[in-house]
Amino acid sequence: MHALIVFCHPEPRSFNGALKDVAVEALERRGHSVEVSDLYAEGFDPVEHPAHFAERAEPETFLPLTEQRHAFNAGTLPDDVRREIARLERADLVILQFPLWWHGLPAMLKGWFDRVCVYGGVYSGSMRYDLGRFRGKRAICSVTTGSPAPAFTRHGRGGDMATLMWPMHCSLYYLGMSVLAPQATYGVQGGGLSYQAEADFRAHLEAAKAHWARRLATLEEASPIPFSGWDDWDEHGVLRDEHPARWRP
Amino acid sequence: MHALIVFCHPEPRSFNGALKDVAVEALERRGHSVEVSDLYAEGFDPVEHPAHFAERAEPETFLPLTEQRHAFNAGTLPDDVRREIARLERADLVILQFPLWWHGLPAMLKGWFDRVCVYGGVYSGSMRYDLGRFRGKRAICSVTTGSPAPAFTRHGRGGDMATLMWPMHCSLYYLGMSVLAPQATYGVQGGGLSYQAEADFRAHLEAAKAHWARRLATLEEASPIPFSGWDDWDEHGVLRDEHPARWRP
Repeated sequence: MHALIVFCHPEPRSFNGALKDVAVEALERRGHSVEVSDLYAEGFDPVEHPAHFAERAEPETFLPLTEQRHAFNAGTLPDDVRREIARLERADLVILQFPLWWHGLPAMLKGWFDRVCVYGGVYSGSMRYDLGRFRGKRAICSVTTGSPAPAFTRHGRGGDMATLMWPMHCSLYYLGMSVLAPQATYGVQGGGLSYQAEADFRAHLEAAKAHWARRLATLEEASPIPFSGWDDWDEHGVLRDEHPARWRP
Repeated sequence: MHALIVFCHPEPRSFNGALKDVAVEALERRGHSVEVSDLYAEGFDPVEHPAHFAERAEPETFLPLTEQRHAFNAGTLPDDVRREIARLERADLVILQFPLWWHGLPAMLKGWFDRVCVYGGVYSGSMRYDLGRFRGKRAICSVTTGSPAPAFTRHGRGGDMATLMWPMHCSLYYLGMSVLAPQATYGVQGGGLSYQAEADFRAHLEAAKAHWARRLATLEEASPIPFSGWDDWDEHGVLRDEHPARWRP
């Protein structure tokens, strides 16, 4: 199996960095190959912008999807976007490693979706969901939070974690991937290792690393989150019957 | 009333740009003052990064929250962050105008939250939710989607719109704001005005503008989405009793 870890944290010596490192080790120990997109270290530009499209299909008005499709077809996509698409194509397993910032992906990782997942190339009206380009690949989010776990339970003030993850799971499934239940590590205060002298922090990190390493050994066999698909929808994209069990993670 | 419109689209002549313009006109016609944060035009940097913090509290390991608090207290926050905080402070009503990209905020607007809403300044452990710094202010998301409305109904393949908006509504409420039901404009194909010759597109735009202008006239009196608050939570931040009606929008 070949894995791609899309790593999003500005500090390599962070809790997130440690979880990324342990994933590389654990996967390689099992005989898998691993590639890392280190978005901060590689200086990825997460902002979709006219400057990325030198030869415009529509010079007067910037329509992101129109330009994405045009650049894909003309072979003029920016280098960083082509690199990320090639990495996705090579991967059997895609891991997103990130801290939950403001109830979602950090801008750097959100913009990876905005720019890399190009219309007309990575998806189209007929190439998405269970007919998505990346069907057969598995994807999992490994997310850290500042608040402890109870805040992310169904009636917790941080917001139910399954609901907070829903948009990104939708995006991964939209690309055709089989989405696995997320690996959530709660209560990562500060997000870094500056408190490494503190026994509690160190113990939390070691436990999280061990838990993640054990979980990684199960991903090949794990059942993905069930989603509905083309056969389930009417012509408006709505479930023909109500199948809540298939629709909700 | 003074309104701040945080406008996030790379193309001023887009559908989103037209909705921003009509909001300025409609609010000013009612005697309100309006300020616009035009994130793309102003070249806002949405990536939280060590380079934004010249005088570090923790030079060896970059901990975003630690540096945000330190910079706020030391008066060394970046100019763009200070400008955005001042704009928020002046506003009675905050409007986020954006297209739904990959089931959420475009990276540019997501990073506005990541960078502007600084720990220790705009929020803290004791200054959030209904004790948030911006309590008394109203906030509303005006969002456009590519897919038509049925895809965003409860069993639609695009994902239920209330669930997709949940993370951003959580973020606005976290800051203390009263969050109003979103203004959603569906089926904006291409997101721009390149089809202005097409009567359907023009009619859709004019209808959306008129609907938004009418809605804007009601925002002062509208009831916000109910959220639970400090009095409802136990020491773990979980509802003492189950009050689904107060918890879900």
